[in-house]
Amino acid sequence: MTLTGNMLIGQQAITGNREAIHGIDPATGLPLEPTYHGGSGEHVEQACALAWSALDSYRATPLEARAEFLETIAGEIEALGDELIDRAVAETGLPRPRIQGERGRTCQQLRTFARTVRAGEWLDVRVDSALPERQPLPRPDLRQRQVPLGPVAVFGASNFPLAFSVAGGDTASALAAGCPVIVKAHGAHPGTGELVGRAVARAVKMCGLHEGVFSLLYGSGREVGIALVSDPRIKAVGFTGSRSGGIALCNAALARPEPIPVYAEMSSINPVLLFPAALQSRPEALAQGFVTSLTQGAGQFCTNPGLVIARQGPDLERFIKTAAQLLRNSPAQTMLTPGIFNAYESGVGSLAEHAQTVARGLRGETPNQCQAHLFVTQASDFLADPALQAEMFGAASLIVHCASEAQIRQVIEHLEGQLTATLHLDDADVESARALLPTLERKAGRLLVNGWPTGVEVCDAMVHGGPFPATSDARSTSVGTAAILRFLRPVCYQDFPDALLPAALKHGNPLQLRRLLDGQREA
Amino acid sequence: MTLTGNMLIGQQAITGNREAIHGIDPATGLPLEPTYHGGSGEHVEQACALAWSALDSYRATPLEARAEFLETIAGEIEALGDELIDRAVAETGLPRPRIQGERGRTCQQLRTFARTVRAGEWLDVRVDSALPERQPLPRPDLRQRQVPLGPVAVFGASNFPLAFSVAGGDTASALAAGCPVIVKAHGAHPGTGELVGRAVARAVKMCGLHEGVFSLLYGSGREVGIALVSDPRIKAVGFTGSRSGGIALCNAALARPEPIPVYAEMSSINPVLLFPAALQSRPEALAQGFVTSLTQGAGQFCTNPGLVIARQGPDLERFIKTAAQLLRNSPAQTMLTPGIFNAYESGVGSLAEHAQTVARGLRGETPNQCQAHLFVTQASDFLADPALQAEMFGAASLIVHCASEAQIRQVIEHLEGQLTATLHLDDADVESARALLPTLERKAGRLLVNGWPTGVEVCDAMVHGGPFPATSDARSTSVGTAAILRFLRPVCYQDFPDALLPAALKHGNPLQLRRLLDGQREA
Repeated sequence: MTLTGNMLIGQQAITGNREAIHGIDPATGLPLEPTYHGGSGEHVEQACALAWSALDSYRATPLEARAEFLETIAGEIEALGDELIDRAVAETGLPRPRIQGERGRTCQQLRTFARTVRAGEWLDVRVDSALPERQPLPRPDLRQRQVPLGPVAVFGASNFPLAFSVAGGDTASALAAGCPVIVKAHGAHPGTGELVGRAVARAVKMCGLHEGVFSLLYGSGREVGIALVSDPRIKAVGFTGSRSGGIALCNAALARPEPIPVYAEMSSINPVLLFPAALQSRPEALAQGFVTSLTQGAGQFCTNPGLVIARQGPDLERFIKTAAQLLRNSPAQTMLTPGIFNAYESGVGSLAEHAQTVARGLRGETPNQCQAHLFVTQASDFLADPALQAEMFGAASLIVHCASEAQIRQVIEHLEGQLTATLHLDDADVESARALLPTLERKAGRLLVNGWPTGVEVCDAMVHGGPFPATSDARSTSVGTAAILRFLRPVCYQDFPDALLPAALKHGNPLQLRRLLDGQREA
Repeated sequence: MTLTGNMLIGQQAITGNREAIHGIDPATGLPLEPTYHGGSGEHVEQACALAWSALDSYRATPLEARAEFLETIAGEIEALGDELIDRAVAETGLPRPRIQGERGRTCQQLRTFARTVRAGEWLDVRVDSALPERQPLPRPDLRQRQVPLGPVAVFGASNFPLAFSVAGGDTASALAAGCPVIVKAHGAHPGTGELVGRAVARAVKMCGLHEGVFSLLYGSGREVGIALVSDPRIKAVGFTGSRSGGIALCNAALARPEPIPVYAEMSSINPVLLFPAALQSRPEALAQGFVTSLTQGAGQFCTNPGLVIARQGPDLERFIKTAAQLLRNSPAQTMLTPGIFNAYESGVGSLAEHAQTVARGLRGETPNQCQAHLFVTQASDFLADPALQAEMFGAASLIVHCASEAQIRQVIEHLEGQLTATLHLDDADVESARALLPTLERKAGRLLVNGWPTGVEVCDAMVHGGPFPATSDARSTSVGTAAILRFLRPVCYQDFPDALLPAALKHGNPLQLRRLLDGQREA
């Protein structure tokens, strides 16, 4: 396949008519061919009109057909072979094995949603049978299922060019729910976006679906992004990116005559708590694990451990000493984009004025390389200075010295919402940890014991979400099968004749779902 | 029990220090004793502080204890006996049997949520077991459950002084989810609010719960309402009322540093579609059912049938003729408050300038009595004039004459979001109805065949919700057991030792929940 630089509006390849967009090889800073062009409001209009006309037929697809569609997308992505890997490596600077692994994750994610679609539990079928003899009034027959919200706008992330981008988690879960999807491609990996977008469009065609089920636009957040979110035919938004970007989309969604849900995953510093017994028994091993997690992928993960909280004392000093040594030897790594590199440099520069610098990693010798940073501060300063809670996207972390268990609790209570919170503990720490759990549950979507927050499993039990500003909507997850629930709403059917009921609700239960029938879950 | 005119901040009775508030007998327009006083920002602060300090202990209550609390509230409301009925009748002008029925519904609702709490399905427990041998990386043990969002502010409705007020659906579902509740009492029935509030507070005490689990404030929407919604310790809002009131709360919630969900049920005109064969075979019976539903309770229901859509012709004329006759003889009924009466008068006055008046009911002879109104208009006018879609809260409805099936579809596509949509059809209409279902499903939360939308069953399958402006969040229902889901968010526990896991997630499954275990639902 040769890259064309085109957008996809349904099955049609369209050249944008706005600003030029190039992928950039971050290791050299040089632009990559071809040239992409941003779309205009008219392209948004066309894609939304197509998505809207696809909605009713797409959401009526049988579960099996929808599952096969998701599997076909996975197959088409795999069929791109090395061209996809080569391009993604060139555009992102990420190591080849990482991109290969991410492709596997992306395709597995699509297949996992196919399995979820087939199982049909997300339909949440509830039946309350008619009670014609009930006094004083009869009860009608009432049946509930979930239906898709409508077309969804997806904004891909820079740091997962496959798993959180054109055919990533947001797209997979929205398609699984029965929603057509319009992706605004991330400008940091336009070629990867085009390859994957064309794979999805091929799957649409192979499965005989309405072409409006999927479109791919390029362009600026301001012109294309806000126009998408403001279009009355868009009924929900999935976004992964910066806090300011997410909030801008939330505001646009709420300024509409009909406000819509925005699922924005934005900002998290992922506190790590080192409990006394664990810190005493294995400070060096903890430091090793910490630095590995912190520097992995140049720290460009939403779940990067950006904050460490512990009681001050000799054990914490041993941890810091080892971490500092390891960090000083950690090689510089190419970051995803010049923009991310500049933001990181500015972030660590600014933090250095608020906290004490303990160690820096090796300096980069090529453009856009991340130099790891480790800072320390006192809990009293952390509590007083909001700047110390700002996310630094990259391999930088801040250690907070606490004077007492009470102060640790104060620091945790003071935190904004988080994607994760990590506890390192030994048996002797269990009661101290238990006392903090209610607070941690209020602060984060995922709590880990004796692990590291980087690495987000795609499974049923995953929560990649959390209170604001980790996300704009803590009631959901953007990773794992529960993400399908974000794009659904319930509809109740009262006294419908069987002929008019959707298959999921028919009296004979032809889909063999485990319904909540008259208050009892069917076996 | 003697009414005191006090608010309740936890177990403490507090006299407000702001404007005087009286219940008013709408049949006479005269104020009722005692005098209530609005609370101030300081009272909001106290109630929120108490609710916050109650959160962690309340949400840790075992399911059985929480269920018993809900049942105790129901028992305490019943124990109020005739004092509650007398006061509610005096304050609302609603007939005694209606209030008695509503008390039954309110207590049944609390007991239904108790059953839901015990069953525990709302915890949505998901377990993905560790796969230590998996390549290239082991999978950790991951477990998910739902936790309560935090303290909830509830704004009661005027039209259900029991079922949608102090201990109504929002309060019951939030308490069921494990959220402390602060109710802002509706100024239209302050005495009813006090009686019920004291019943809830007694139940809190009898069950040995933290007093902050429940508070009851009086006061203005501006001072007390906005302060409540803006308080950082409030994590969700339940509201039933006007569109402007709901939108004001939504805006306040979004202006917070940490935005929170608002579940506002606001505005719906509940379209009724009369299909040709049904209209031909039984126009008079349909007219009879329609007028009964329209005028019931002076039309003061969110699900009142405010819009009728049908093809013009002799069958529709027969329907209109009968409906008009019935309506002309329908007695005036006392409305809930002078404010509601004035808004209704102004609404029908304004509609009379945009549509043709077909019939008016009998005029009232005492204050605040609703005179029923029936209007007709052409589809082309309806499509051109947004004023024809405005909700008139009361016994008024508009019949839209359509020239063709295509125009019926156009009218439906043109509708704003609705709580309900009703289809009257015979066998010969089934295919026409089927063609409109996808559109109707996009427009409304509940679809009914051959019934009337008034009457909302409290059960598992009910959806009392719908796209904006019917509600601010179509992803949920405010009536029925699924309402508990509005006040929850998921948390994932990774590699937790059994000793630290909550009971719902422990390896032995002590709560005997049907978990989603490694992708399979347990029997």
